[in-house]
Amino acid sequence: MRNIKLLIEYDGTNYIGWQRQPLKHGKSIQGLIEDGIKKMVHHDVRLIAAGRTDAGVHAFGQVANFFTESHIPAERFPLALKSMLPSDIVVKGAWDVPEDFHARYSALEKTYRYIIRTAELPSAFDWRYATHVPMPLNLGEMKKAAAFFVGTKDFRAFCAKGSPVKHFVRTVKKAELTKDDSYIYFEVTADGFLYHMVRIMVGTLIEIGRGYWHAEDVKRILASMERKYAGPTALPQGLILWEVKY
Amino acid sequence: MRNIKLLIEYDGTNYIGWQRQPLKHGKSIQGLIEDGIKKMVHHDVRLIAAGRTDAGVHAFGQVANFFTESHIPAERFPLALKSMLPSDIVVKGAWDVPEDFHARYSALEKTYRYIIRTAELPSAFDWRYATHVPMPLNLGEMKKAAAFFVGTKDFRAFCAKGSPVKHFVRTVKKAELTKDDSYIYFEVTADGFLYHMVRIMVGTLIEIGRGYWHAEDVKRILASMERKYAGPTALPQGLILWEVKY
Repeated sequence: MRNIKLLIEYDGTNYIGWQRQPLKHGKSIQGLIEDGIKKMVHHDVRLIAAGRTDAGVHAFGQVANFFTESHIPAERFPLALKSMLPSDIVVKGAWDVPEDFHARYSALEKTYRYIIRTAELPSAFDWRYATHVPMPLNLGEMKKAAAFFVGTKDFRAFCAKGSPVKHFVRTVKKAELTKDDSYIYFEVTADGFLYHMVRIMVGTLIEIGRGYWHAEDVKRILASMERKYAGPTALPQGLILWEVKY
Repeated sequence: MRNIKLLIEYDGTNYIGWQRQPLKHGKSIQGLIEDGIKKMVHHDVRLIAAGRTDAGVHAFGQVANFFTESHIPAERFPLALKSMLPSDIVVKGAWDVPEDFHARYSALEKTYRYIIRTAELPSAFDWRYATHVPMPLNLGEMKKAAAFFVGTKDFRAFCAKGSPVKHFVRTVKKAELTKDDSYIYFEVTADGFLYHMVRIMVGTLIEIGRGYWHAEDVKRILASMERKYAGPTALPQGLILWEVKY
């Protein structure tokens, strides 16, 4: 049995998210790619993704794998799928991998980026990819706050309520903010992320940036272990699954 | 009577173009902005634009003006219109101008940009803003060709058939190509443009870049004064009305 790994880029704006759901809920990225592969290999396939991104969330470096008996050379998949997928989903690469490769469980670390546009007015070109926060944000204080995310910690306070996971300890390796013109970029790398973790981090950083909280409040929020003490869940459209390392 | 000048940015993907048309043809950018202004000033307005961009063409710096008796301060229009317009149309500025200012006739020069993506695969994020030409293009030869566009010339061969204009002489002040990673940018500035002129220039430059013609063929095409000798009309989605100077 061949195991094929795909590198995938998508604009999540028009989809219900990565995960396939009953069709009445709308189109999923997983569903569209699976349907495309099925037409090539002539059997049902099930894609396993590194991260099941939510509606409106994008990916620059999503990774997924599937099993097939087909003899189609792996490198043929990107161009063949191009003609079967809409313009906002692109399979950028495909490789044969060992049978025990699992896009989610084999991942060593994932990196997400979140883009905030701080200009007074939105842009007609980036509203899908950046969240508009038209207010002055204190970048220095936000950077200090982000530093408190780094390390092996219980991130329960940064996990959406109702999430079925039982273990909330994650190791954040990097949590950095940079500014470029009217944009603030948040880049965070961890061995894994809880549900809505990055968006709650960003919601919290915005509260700190606008002066409602101080950087040190992150310590208090982490220690509380309660979702309600963290900031709001930032909008999905600034979030991009950037890279997955194995 | 007040005359108000607007600076406008839009993603033209979902519109039939700048120009208002009977509603059955779809939504126009002009129509949506006029409807928004009407709600503010309580009378019909007619926007005069610097360039009536086609369906799928974008603007970073479109300029338009309209007359009103309203006393609303000009600087209030951008934020007020934000709530009335879709995310892909943004009024970036508004100023009172003399009564004889005409967005089209007062323009001294306009600049368009055209973006070509040359990577083998398209991108999920820029397919609206760049035309995908997945083949090696000879940038040096294209640059030489673009230089032949500069000057005061009869551009009849670069004008779509059926255009009602009678004078085909235009002065191109700048026609430059730059490359950045997987993208080629064509920037062209002129005192005015004929219908489809930039897109026919780009279609011609691509033919030269892929080796079908040489740079010197531009001289032959210009001299022919016949549309049929120029290259095909490049797709609209790489074209952006970049700046208008007065």
